[in-house]
Amino acid sequence: MSIVCADDYRSRARGLLPAPLWDFIEGGSGDELTVDANRLAFDRISLRPRVLVDVSERSTATSVFGAALASPIGIAPTAYQRMLHPEGEVATARGAGQAGGLFVVSIFASRTLEEIAAAATGPLWLQLYWLRQRSALSRLVARAETAGYQALVLTVDAPVIGKRLRDLRNGFAIDAGVRAVNLDDALTEGKHISTPGTSAIATHAAATFDTSITWADLSWLRSTTALPLVLKGILTAEDAELAVAHGVDGIIVSNHGGRQLDGAIPAMRALPEVVAAVAGRVPVLLDGGVRRGRDILIALASGADAVLIGRPALWALTVDGSDGVAHLLSMLTEELSHTMALTGRPKLADLDPTVLA
Amino acid sequence: MSIVCADDYRSRARGLLPAPLWDFIEGGSGDELTVDANRLAFDRISLRPRVLVDVSERSTATSVFGAALASPIGIAPTAYQRMLHPEGEVATARGAGQAGGLFVVSIFASRTLEEIAAAATGPLWLQLYWLRQRSALSRLVARAETAGYQALVLTVDAPVIGKRLRDLRNGFAIDAGVRAVNLDDALTEGKHISTPGTSAIATHAAATFDTSITWADLSWLRSTTALPLVLKGILTAEDAELAVAHGVDGIIVSNHGGRQLDGAIPAMRALPEVVAAVAGRVPVLLDGGVRRGRDILIALASGADAVLIGRPALWALTVDGSDGVAHLLSMLTEELSHTMALTGRPKLADLDPTVLA
Amino acid sequence: MSIVCADDYRSRARGLLPAPLWDFIEGGSGDELTVDANRLAFDRISLRPRVLVDVSERSTATSVFGAALASPIGIAPTAYQRMLHPEGEVATARGAGQAGGLFVVSIFASRTLEEIAAAATGPLWLQLYWLRQRSALSRLVARAETAGYQALVLTVDAPVIGKRLRDLRNGFAIDAGVRAVNLDDALTEGKHISTPGTSAIATHAAATFDTSITWADLSWLRSTTALPLVLKGILTAEDAELAVAHGVDGIIVSNHGGRQLDGAIPAMRALPEVVAAVAGRVPVLLDGGVRRGRDILIALASGADAVLIGRPALWALTVDGSDGVAHLLSMLTEELSHTMALTGRPKLADLDPTVLA
Amino acid sequence: MSIVCADDYRSRARGLLPAPLWDFIEGGSGDELTVDANRLAFDRISLRPRVLVDVSERSTATSVFGAALASPIGIAPTAYQRMLHPEGEVATARGAGQAGGLFVVSIFASRTLEEIAAAATGPLWLQLYWLRQRSALSRLVARAETAGYQALVLTVDAPVIGKRLRDLRNGFAIDAGVRAVNLDDALTEGKHISTPGTSAIATHAAATFDTSITWADLSWLRSTTALPLVLKGILTAEDAELAVAHGVDGIIVSNHGGRQLDGAIPAMRALPEVVAAVAGRVPVLLDGGVRRGRDILIALASGADAVLIGRPALWALTVDGSDGVAHLLSMLTEELSHTMALTGRPKLADLDPTVLA
Repeated sequence: MSIVCADDYRSRARGLLPAPLWDFIEGGSGDELTVDANRLAFDRISLRPRVLVDVSERSTATSVFGAALASPIGIAPTAYQRMLHPEGEVATARGAGQAGGLFVVSIFASRTLEEIAAAATGPLWLQLYWLRQRSALSRLVARAETAGYQALVLTVDAPVIGKRLRDLRNGFAIDAGVRAVNLDDALTEGKHISTPGTSAIATHAAATFDTSITWADLSWLRSTTALPLVLKGILTAEDAELAVAHGVDGIIVSNHGGRQLDGAIPAMRALPEVVAAVAGRVPVLLDGGVRRGRDILIALASGADAVLIGRPALWALTVDGSDGVAHLLSMLTEELSHTMALTGRPKLADLDPTVLA
Repeated sequence: MSIVCADDYRSRARGLLPAPLWDFIEGGSGDELTVDANRLAFDRISLRPRVLVDVSERSTATSVFGAALASPIGIAPTAYQRMLHPEGEVATARGAGQAGGLFVVSIFASRTLEEIAAAATGPLWLQLYWLRQRSALSRLVARAETAGYQALVLTVDAPVIGKRLRDLRNGFAIDAGVRAVNLDDALTEGKHISTPGTSAIATHAAATFDTSITWADLSWLRSTTALPLVLKGILTAEDAELAVAHGVDGIIVSNHGGRQLDGAIPAMRALPEVVAAVAGRVPVLLDGGVRRGRDILIALASGADAVLIGRPALWALTVDGSDGVAHLLSMLTEELSHTMALTGRPKLADLDPTVLA
Repeated sequence: MSIVCADDYRSRARGLLPAPLWDFIEGGSGDELTVDANRLAFDRISLRPRVLVDVSERSTATSVFGAALASPIGIAPTAYQRMLHPEGEVATARGAGQAGGLFVVSIFASRTLEEIAAAATGPLWLQLYWLRQRSALSRLVARAETAGYQALVLTVDAPVIGKRLRDLRNGFAIDAGVRAVNLDDALTEGKHISTPGTSAIATHAAATFDTSITWADLSWLRSTTALPLVLKGILTAEDAELAVAHGVDGIIVSNHGGRQLDGAIPAMRALPEVVAAVAGRVPVLLDGGVRRGRDILIALASGADAVLIGRPALWALTVDGSDGVAHLLSMLTEELSHTMALTGRPKLADLDPTVLA
Repeated sequence: MSIVCADDYRSRARGLLPAPLWDFIEGGSGDELTVDANRLAFDRISLRPRVLVDVSERSTATSVFGAALASPIGIAPTAYQRMLHPEGEVATARGAGQAGGLFVVSIFASRTLEEIAAAATGPLWLQLYWLRQRSALSRLVARAETAGYQALVLTVDAPVIGKRLRDLRNGFAIDAGVRAVNLDDALTEGKHISTPGTSAIATHAAATFDTSITWADLSWLRSTTALPLVLKGILTAEDAELAVAHGVDGIIVSNHGGRQLDGAIPAMRALPEVVAAVAGRVPVLLDGGVRRGRDILIALASGADAVLIGRPALWALTVDGSDGVAHLLSMLTEELSHTMALTGRPKLADLDPTVLA
């Protein structure tokens, strides 16, 4: 069967992965209300196409923090990609680079920051959880700077890990042969120990994440680096306002793909209030439920500067390594361009709320 | 299989109980519209999480009528718990106490008020239906006071018993070996006689409940005791206002879990108007459809002081007696705390309508 | 199995009737959108119960045009009831009388007006379609007056017969042994001739119904009789206003049970605008989708003076003749009374929009 | 089985066609959201019937651009009809003429314009895509004028072809024996080459359609002909206003039956804003989801002057050639007339928004 849309990677990947691993990447927290709502929020929005516009020349090219991108699409940070493909994050970086996309590397990457950077031809950002052990963070930041990473992403929606019932039922743990190689082994050993009824991921986070940090603590992180700092997991105008007030350089509207707070407002539904609060002062990205060029166009028309793709990138990585990732991003870019043609908005700058109904 | 959420107790309990008994505890009245609507009312509400809040110290501790609770969760009154577990209400009381929760004992408890009190380490309330035989009521009230019960709950949504079609089809009657031991046998004998096409519960209520009582009659009940009086089954602002005007000490917003008036407004949908009418003058509790920490947080954010759990406590009692009940309450408390962390509201006082969307 | 709700008659009747006959009574027109919407309109309305009201004495008794009824429930006019039970309309009349209900006899009754009147102990109304042959109408009116019928009901929503696809596919025709005995055989002969792809009902109506009548023609019908004249099939405020202006004595809000205009506004949704336009000047009844005491209470609270039951009466007639009809009406009356108890509205006069949400 | 509604042709046609061909005519683009939404938009609208209106004389007759039609129903342009029936567009033209309907011939017709015109007894319009090769267009326009076509329809919603996943998966291509005989073979050769994972239709369009045309280019097309020019694919008030400002003679509100922009606003939902913008200056037609007389009445009541039927005409052509097409149109005309009777609007001029709810 040909791959003609992102969901085709989904069905193929499902056939390739053991059930507990599939559940880990596919599942969300609680009743998975937010997983479903993220998708539905896009499908509830209709498009108002304009006609007789010259769409012969279309461009999806854009830039973030000065780095050129073939399209406003990046790969969201996800952990331990060697569980899905032997090359892991190296393949993802290579694929993203081929397609001209951004790649946000997880703090729990299973390849070294340097290996990933060596394979990358496009921009890399490094995602961080705020570990209790701040020295581990500052070492990572220093390595990322040296390796040419262009921004830091601090995930702020995970002081504790969501109740992912599938993982709890599966007693899910990370395969012993796949390590968070950018952190001391001691710091992540617990993630490899399976216990029925618990998730090793959640247990580990409880032990190592700092749940006490507040806006005031951001200054420490900023003091360690000159890189732009992006917060991932903002869903309200209030927090968007605070982020800008605290000098944050970018915002990712996200509910962690429905994996953290079950019942959280869908990312797409939260986007307009964040965009309004930010008022163009910093870039706003969105992740959560993006599966189609249509979804990307809706997010951009609502004021997002770019979107991140989570699960689909993992499906493509599983199925075809770096080629899969590159193909997925190119396909989505092409779908975006195609939707721009059919809505009569050939430039990204044409995308505004008048296309939405 | 591990128990990772309240619904896991449901599926296990279903496998353990005979079908007519399962139908009795699970079913509602009429088309069970309200049973379903109670759940749906929670799922329709989204949450707006705040980030970068110090959630390292969270507290769910609260109190009702001066009694400390580990969390704002109690067990709703349900009858004849020995049908589900040999220890009946004694197990429930022990479990509630272990978890620091409130237990509201039914007038149709199958263990004596004194046995239950002896097993309890947390607060007990006694629920009453207004029987025609007022002497039976006053005797119960006196015994409850002596045994240390801390409040009376008068159920006001059941002048007649809902048309529970499952029970009617099953000709449901209470097992002869399980008695409402706190009442004279003569008063409850009818509940043990099965007749096809009728419910012994409904027949008994028609014979023994006083359908004529009004707000004016509350003064008699209050004259029998110094205990706080809570009304269970209020769903409108008008009645909330009347309750406060008549000196009632607390209100439980409830539609009897969808077992009485089919089509009744969902408890969660009724809560805001009751809270607005009460305006903080007395505590407001809610029951009906609470299955998750998320539901509890939504109720509290809407102004409830606590919630009561009905069917899930019966499932847990069936599966594992007092340990099941304690585990269920602890799990819900933990889920509430977890949801407080993920919404950035570490204290109960932080919960207000800004978290709802 | 015991009969514990109206739908229990449905499943039994279905098992007793040949499929084309079942389709004839159960089906609607077109996509049956209105059949479904009639039901859904009730289920979308929630109830706001009041508590601590003395509901020991409840009354559903009412009257229409001076005739006492045990409850505001009548049987809607439906044709050829001998297809369902050998006694036909005589059984229905006897059953309605036993239960204290109104019976509206169809112009296409399969028993004579006089036989029906002899069996009836409650009020009878006679329903008419406006036939091209006015002499047939005036003869019927005269016989109805003589036989003690208390009102005339003119169905105004059927200038042509709805596209009932089930009947078209079945080539439905009325069994030759069941005749519209109150009309000349010549006038109805066509209804007994089955032709694949057509409905004999529709063919007959096209030949015999007068599609040209207007408000001005009502004066002729009124000139033939002193009986009150009720219009059945009003769904708009505009027509309700015209009806009152033309001296009509009552209105039945109805879409013919979804058998005429597919897509017509649900009866329950149309009721409030009709009630507002009529402003109490004449009685307003409703039919369409009434299956429960709850539905009846909702209609009455919205301003209806009574409701009519169509299909459920046919189910009950099929299953158990006059006893079935009497039982159905008594059950619905009891359900209404029960719902009045649980909503804290013991008298019909207590039912107003404050009970609806 | 008798054919009693348009959907009966659907099920029969499905049984007659190979799956890839069925998918080609039945499918839409992307997730087929708009295919479904087109239908749902009609079903969400209820009708408010008026009664006691003389409906004995009803007329569906109308005219477009001076040509008389039996009813405001035409056949939408669809390509390569010889794939469905050996006579192809000749059969469709003959059937449309028999029923007094308009036929819009596709630029990719598989019979010559002249053959079609010879078979037609009703008005013909010619639909065009704007090909890069303008000489091909002007030759077609000249032939159409000569052959008596009465208007040109320029499709403006297809600068690129929608992602029709079914066709992509099927590697769909047009059967080699069925040609777009009105164009040079060289211009359409590519549509007959099947390649897995691609649609020959889409590939061909990418090569031959001019994606750069704008409102300014319309003047060239108008300079080639005196025929009225109609734009097909307008969904917004803004473009309707521009169309009138540029001297266009008519507008077809359409999203290409959900085959182009997936997520496009349903045609029926777009209609009111287009009608308001046009304000009667030019005729407005609608296509997309019309399956019933009820749908047609809704469109007309919302201000459409006529509707076009796409897929149902193909089903009927497949099943029964010209007789099928004639029967379908006559059936829809009769359904429209019937719905006019049951809503109490015997003339097309009676149809206005007061019939909608």
